[in-house]
Order: sequence, then structure tokens, then C-alpha cells
Amino acid sequence: MASAAPMPTAPPAWDTVAIVGVGLIGGSVGRALLERGLAKQVVGIGHRATSLRAAKKVGAVTSTTTDLARGVARANLVVICTPVEQIAAQALVALNHAPAGALITDAGSTKQQIVAAVEKKLPPGGRFVGSHPMAGSEKSGPGEARADLFVGRAVIVTPTKKSPAADTEAVGEFWAALGARVFMMSPEAHDRAVAGTSHLPHLISALLAAVTRSEDAPLIAGGWLDTTRVAGGDPELWRQILQSNDQQVLAALAQFEKQLTSARRALERGDGARLAKLLAQGKAVRDALGN
Amino acid sequence: MASAAPMPTAPPAWDTVAIVGVGLIGGSVGRALLERGLAKQVVGIGHRATSLRAAKKVGAVTSTTTDLARGVARANLVVICTPVEQIAAQALVALNHAPAGALITDAGSTKQQIVAAVEKKLPPGGRFVGSHPMAGSEKSGPGEARADLFVGRAVIVTPTKKSPAADTEAVGEFWAALGARVFMMSPEAHDRAVAGTSHLPHLISALLAAVTRSEDAPLIAGGWLDTTRVAGGDPELWRQILQSNDQQVLAALAQFEKQLTSARRALERGDGARLAKLLAQGKAVRDALGN
Repeated sequence: MASAAPMPTAPPAWDTVAIVGVGLIGGSVGRALLERGLAKQVVGIGHRATSLRAAKKVGAVTSTTTDLARGVARANLVVICTPVEQIAAQALVALNHAPAGALITDAGSTKQQIVAAVEKKLPPGGRFVGSHPMAGSEKSGPGEARADLFVGRAVIVTPTKKSPAADTEAVGEFWAALGARVFMMSPEAHDRAVAGTSHLPHLISALLAAVTRSEDAPLIAGGWLDTTRVAGGDPELWRQILQSNDQQVLAALAQFEKQLTSARRALERGDGARLAKLLAQGKAVRDALGN
Repeated sequence: MASAAPMPTAPPAWDTVAIVGVGLIGGSVGRALLERGLAKQVVGIGHRATSLRAAKKVGAVTSTTTDLARGVARANLVVICTPVEQIAAQALVALNHAPAGALITDAGSTKQQIVAAVEKKLPPGGRFVGSHPMAGSEKSGPGEARADLFVGRAVIVTPTKKSPAADTEAVGEFWAALGARVFMMSPEAHDRAVAGTSHLPHLISALLAAVTRSEDAPLIAGGWLDTTRVAGGDPELWRQILQSNDQQVLAALAQFEKQLTSARRALERGDGARLAKLLAQGKAVRDALGN
């Protein structure tokens, strides 16, 4: 998002930002905005009074409301950080109640269904571009919010052919101002990629944990703890993510099952060369992409 | 391993300990013994002169040799820390060349095949009880060795009906003296348990990494890094571990594949309730057994 032309380097600033959903992600957006002096007012919008109070207490928002339409009424920027099944409908309410020219984005882990649903009913002049900050965790709630959550993290901004370049750029600048590394790709490319890098690993991790016998607890060591860590995430949030990206997750799963069958047959047949090759493939990718 | 009777609390001490294989585990055993003053001499035994030199340089051994029979000739205790396929044969050489009364144990990740092979040819008066320190890592080599590697870690000691109680206890005291929490179970129970807590997770982690596309690297975040961390381990070491525990790994894999099929069908049919239940099962086990 860096500009090549010499220009004032002041970060973008907003008078009023509305955050819908003040959990780990929404709360961290609010704290980052306020602690970096990027917004004068941050309105926290949510269903539960306890979460809203907690968000205010940790300095994530300056005011709160349970009324979405009223909460966005003065917002220049609206960031929707709720579970994926709620995002499209809330984005449309925000688009219809925020001031003219307000920019709307979201933080959902899947993009194709959300972006298509919003663009289908986009009001004239409405500005919406989807986002996905890769900063989730098995932790949740405003109590886990951190102002530096996005620093150095990838945020994927997902414009379509209908997205004005200025809107896409403005959304990218917002995340960059929170310290993120911003990438642009289509909602389809995003969903295909995260099916392999996030959704499939989550599903597999949960299934691995589920088949572990509690009497084997003394034999649990670092490998199991690492491999199953994300299984501690909220099952309902992840049910929504997996179902809203079901076709891409099924495609990634088919690839995985093919490898799994190959590994099982190698074990059954005592084919050590084949087994070693499969393990070496995994190590090569891990060494290349991990750190 | 604590005794209820009042007795001198000095830790067990050995005049000479021989360590066969001076990688992460063997090197850490040596460093722990020497830094805790538990052994006067530690003989490092290995194939490669470079590893032996490195082990001596980091303070893991006091002398080195590539000759197993000569290396154990004065040892009161021999700890075999080589890849699992080499352990039984080396244990038998050690049993036949160490002084009368020397205690032999190992650090192999599987126990049934190794213990059976050693007991089958145990010389009269030979003292062997298998062990498995749950302290492996995707790192390897004597350069990674740490004196505190075993502190607080579980070590499983696997006696059989043939093991004299005094030998089992002495092996347990050895690991306890390095700071480990010692558990006792049969080789069969051990192998069944680690198939689920270690071997299956390793295999799955490697397969998950293998199906990740390199062009998706920007979308890799903490979940993928955790879930695939152990895939960075040595493929040949893990090929040996998986094959030497193939029946138990296949049994654990069958359980996993059953869950996987259930999850795939839930996704295919849009059965959100079933999917949520599977994810909740995983979270329940992770929350109960993890930390």
C-alpha cells in the first residue's frame, strides 16, 4: 500500500469508527485505532451488554450500543467483526444507515459468500470491500484484545470487478495503519487459499483431538499440543467458517484424503520408501513455508 | 519414584555412563548428567566423528568412540539414543560387552518391538528395561542438546513380567534424577497410547503440510504453523517410528478416518449440527488434556 510519490506521511484518520462485534478481533481493532490516535470516536456495537462493557473497560471503544443502525449513524468507517453468518446482513444495515460516503469492511474468515451477498444488494454509492485479517486465535473475547494484534500480520483485502480502486485502497490503508501487511486478491482466490492454510488444518486438528483417549493424557507432549492447539477455538464460529467455504474445504479435504490413503497403504504394506517420501514431502513444505 | 522411608537424599550417581547416539536426546542426557554432577565419565558413542566432536564441544560427553563394544566396556549405565531400528541390536551388544551388573536402557519412541527383541536374547544376568522420554522435537543434533530438556517432561519406563523390580526402579530413578516425571507401563500399553498422542499426530501433520500449495504462503498464519510444526522432524526417524508401531498407528488412523468421513459427509450434506458436534468434541478433549 506504499505510495511511490512523495506525499504527507500522516496515517489515515477517521472521526468516528463503528465496530460491530467487539471480541478478540473487533476489540483489537478498537484498541489499535485509539492507542495509535487514528480515530476520535470508536463506537462498539454488539448484542451482549457484558461484552460491550468489557470492550469499553479495556479501552477498545469510546461508546457502545446494541442498536446497529444508530451505532453507525455518524461513522466514517464501519468494521464488521462478527461471526461470518451475520456479516452480510449487518453490512447491508450499515450501508443503509451510515452517512453517505462511509466505508464499510469486515473481518470474516471467508469472503466469497459475504462479498457476493453484500454486492447483490449494495445501495447506490455504497462503499464495501471485504477483508480478512489473519490474526485469529483459539482465544476469544474483548479481554484478549491487543492493540498490536495486527502488527506484522497479513490482512487480505478482497476487491471484485465492482470495487472502485479508491475504496479498495482505502480499506488497505486502514489495515496498514494498524501495522498489517496488506495483500489483495479476489474473494474466490482467498477462499481457495485459506481452505488449505486455515480451514482444513482447523478441521483436522479438531478431529485429531477428538480421537485422543483421555487415559493417554500422561503421554501427551509438545507434538500433540502443537498439532491440536487450534482445536481449542470456538466450535460454532468454526462451524460457520467451514460451512461458508464448504466447496473449497471439500476440495482441500479430497487432496488430504488422497495423501492419507497413500500413507495408510504404505503402512499396511510395509512400504517404507513410500512412507518416507510422504514424510519428506511434508517436511519440505513445512521448511519452505514455516519458520 | 520417591521413597517413603527416610534415607539419604543424594541422587543416584554413576561412575561411567555410556550414551549411544549423541543427538538431541543423547546429548541432552549427557549434559544433564555432567551439569548435575551425576556421572564422573560420560562416553559418547556414535558413527559420525562430526557429531561426536560436537557432543564433546557442548559438554555432553567427556570422551568419545565409534566402537560400541569398547565404549561400554567400563559403563555402569548405558543409554541408547539412536533411531528405533538400531536400538535392539545395539542394546544386545552393550549387554554382552558392558561390565557385569551394568544397567541398560534406551530412549526409543516405540517399545514393544525393541523390548521383545532384547528380552529374547538377553544374556544371563543382563539388566535391560526400556524407556521413552517424551522430549523429542522437530530439532535434532547435539547442537540442540540442553541440560534441562527432561525437566518436568514425562518419561515412560516400560518393564515386562521379566523385569526385576530393582532394575525397573533404577531406570526410573535415573530419569527422575534428570528432572523427569516418571510413569511405568507395559510396552504394549505404551505403544498403543503414543500411537494416538504422538505418531498419528505426526503423520497427519506431515500430510497436512504436504498438501499445502506454496503459492498460498501469504495466507499462512498461526494455525497452520502450529498444526504442521512437527512435520519439520526428520522423515527417516519418523518412518522408522511409524513402521515399528504400524499396527497401533493403523488402529489409531482407522479411528481418525472414521471421524474424517463423518466430517466430510456433514460438510457435503450441509449438516451443521453434526459438524458443530464434531468440532465441539475436539475442543472438549483439547481443553481437558491441553494447556
